[in-house]
Amino acid sequence: MPVFTAEQLRGVGTKVFLATGAPREEAEWVSSLLVKANLVGHDSHGAIRIIQYVKAIQKGDINPDAKTEIVKETRASALVNGNWGFGQVVAKKAMEIAVSKAKENTVGTVCAFNAYHVGRLADYTMIAVENDMIGIAMANSPRSVAAYGGMEPLLSTGPLSYAFPTGCEIPFVVDIATSVVAEGKVRVTLHKGGKLPEGCIIDKNGNPSTNPADLYDGGALLPLGGDSFGHKGFGIGLVVEVLSGILSMSGLSYLPNKKGNGLFFQAMDIRSFMPIEEFKKQVDALIRKTKSLKLRPGFTEILIPGEPEFRTEKERLKQGIHVPDRTWEEIKAVAATLGLNADAIVKL
Amino acid sequence: MPVFTAEQLRGVGTKVFLATGAPREEAEWVSSLLVKANLVGHDSHGAIRIIQYVKAIQKGDINPDAKTEIVKETRASALVNGNWGFGQVVAKKAMEIAVSKAKENTVGTVCAFNAYHVGRLADYTMIAVENDMIGIAMANSPRSVAAYGGMEPLLSTGPLSYAFPTGCEIPFVVDIATSVVAEGKVRVTLHKGGKLPEGCIIDKNGNPSTNPADLYDGGALLPLGGDSFGHKGFGIGLVVEVLSGILSMSGLSYLPNKKGNGLFFQAMDIRSFMPIEEFKKQVDALIRKTKSLKLRPGFTEILIPGEPEFRTEKERLKQGIHVPDRTWEEIKAVAATLGLNADAIVKL
Repeated sequence: MPVFTAEQLRGVGTKVFLATGAPREEAEWVSSLLVKANLVGHDSHGAIRIIQYVKAIQKGDINPDAKTEIVKETRASALVNGNWGFGQVVAKKAMEIAVSKAKENTVGTVCAFNAYHVGRLADYTMIAVENDMIGIAMANSPRSVAAYGGMEPLLSTGPLSYAFPTGCEIPFVVDIATSVVAEGKVRVTLHKGGKLPEGCIIDKNGNPSTNPADLYDGGALLPLGGDSFGHKGFGIGLVVEVLSGILSMSGLSYLPNKKGNGLFFQAMDIRSFMPIEEFKKQVDALIRKTKSLKLRPGFTEILIPGEPEFRTEKERLKQGIHVPDRTWEEIKAVAATLGLNADAIVKL
Repeated sequence: MPVFTAEQLRGVGTKVFLATGAPREEAEWVSSLLVKANLVGHDSHGAIRIIQYVKAIQKGDINPDAKTEIVKETRASALVNGNWGFGQVVAKKAMEIAVSKAKENTVGTVCAFNAYHVGRLADYTMIAVENDMIGIAMANSPRSVAAYGGMEPLLSTGPLSYAFPTGCEIPFVVDIATSVVAEGKVRVTLHKGGKLPEGCIIDKNGNPSTNPADLYDGGALLPLGGDSFGHKGFGIGLVVEVLSGILSMSGLSYLPNKKGNGLFFQAMDIRSFMPIEEFKKQVDALIRKTKSLKLRPGFTEILIPGEPEFRTEKERLKQGIHVPDRTWEEIKAVAATLGLNADAIVKL
């Protein structure tokens, strides 16, 4: 399996997206987020997506040169039409608008529709954090998660992310699916061969299953909380659906023509409540206290949300990013359809 | 066990709180929320709290005549000092301020500190809904929930509530603890005698337990998601802690002097994004779709968040509220310390 530096992989993504007609800045941004996903350990959202995106462009599902436009606006909010541009481009603009509105109005709220796949929400909540703000993001997408008690999928995995400024090196960013597991985890288990933990999915008859193939044969993911407490995960999933599916005008997850991501973003200016340095001091105290807690039997440490990704990124920046042979072959193949030689690009 | 109408019980609460020095409007409001909790089936937050509140007033933990004051304000936000008034009074004012700011600024965000126990968050998010807005509420309190992997409690049960306007009769209000179960549920199981479901608590040595007594003997509640996926519930619990503990200036849950509830409230004006009637139409479509889904084996129906409470309220409005003998005796005893005869009040 080939190993690349982040820079090499970014170069491939950028050149490929440029060749599809994307402006340079946007080609670089989309490519950098895919490689960032590899760096932090979420390979399912990494360079492998180059293949999907190029095919989507060729099919007309992504317009690589689309302009994101504000279709409704107040001084504290905006509703954004992504015009089926790259999700990453739409989402970046959406959070930048939220941050700029939050500067004058404490909270900037931006919803977006007609956005293709945006990738990891943490990338956008961290834009708020870079501006010393709190970032909040929710997204919906085509359905895959059952209602609590239901057999068919109703909701999307309904990811949500909250990011907070810290005074220490560790970022503090929650980024989770509101289903027990994200679909990507089931797919990885399927490809590796193996069983899922109990309580992640049901099969097409609504019975619990640990066979990942059952998800793709008419099954469904389960909401966080499992068989006894799944009403909680279902409740949170519904919140994500209403805010990022209805309020965003992007459409409900269960609709047959649903595609892409609906977005609900907020940036919140901490200074409306307290000095930013005091906020960071207290967040750091909470992190320190958490890390110093006595451990339960069977656990070796307590991790802050965002910390596993932070560590993996440090490692992979040193050791490089392993790309499975099959993925690299497919990337080379889609690059070739654009007249590019991916092997040559990484050698530049 | 005596059975009272809601009106009878509200009369007792109101007269008791009036006798402690609360203004009439506030005595009636606090009493009405306690009885509302009984009506919707959450007896742990019902009239039984009259006993606790009177004792807290006599101890000086609640000032029944306190004035809620805004200590920091922007056009879209406020930080509120409850001055240790009734939590219900502070929380109502906080959400009313949020609603009024949202009318001009899309989102009104209000944090509050120095508030005693506020009861059920759904009561406040529904104030936003009565104004055709989306209501969001989070609260922290003294610690009882372990970090994922930790042995000692770090966080509070970190309840959160989201309420959405609907066009149909059923309210759509999520109101859940971010722990697997709320502390009240463990206490009820302890009093009834019985075992908890697996995965709700650990004992003082960090081992899983189904004995509710272990929680009160140095144990802890577990975050939603249990042993395999508890990092998700822990992540959401941390979000509630940062927003309602740090941003609210109310202090972190693990601090030895922590008391009362820290509050983070938002009201959001839907009209900044879409016509309210269109929003309600889509929410109703989501509710109808949810109710029409095929059921999994073992389930008899799918409930919308808020629906169980809605049904119980209808029942209890007809059948009355059962108050356990011991609770009624204790209510009579605290009323007597204020020179009141609770038996006589309910006969008025």
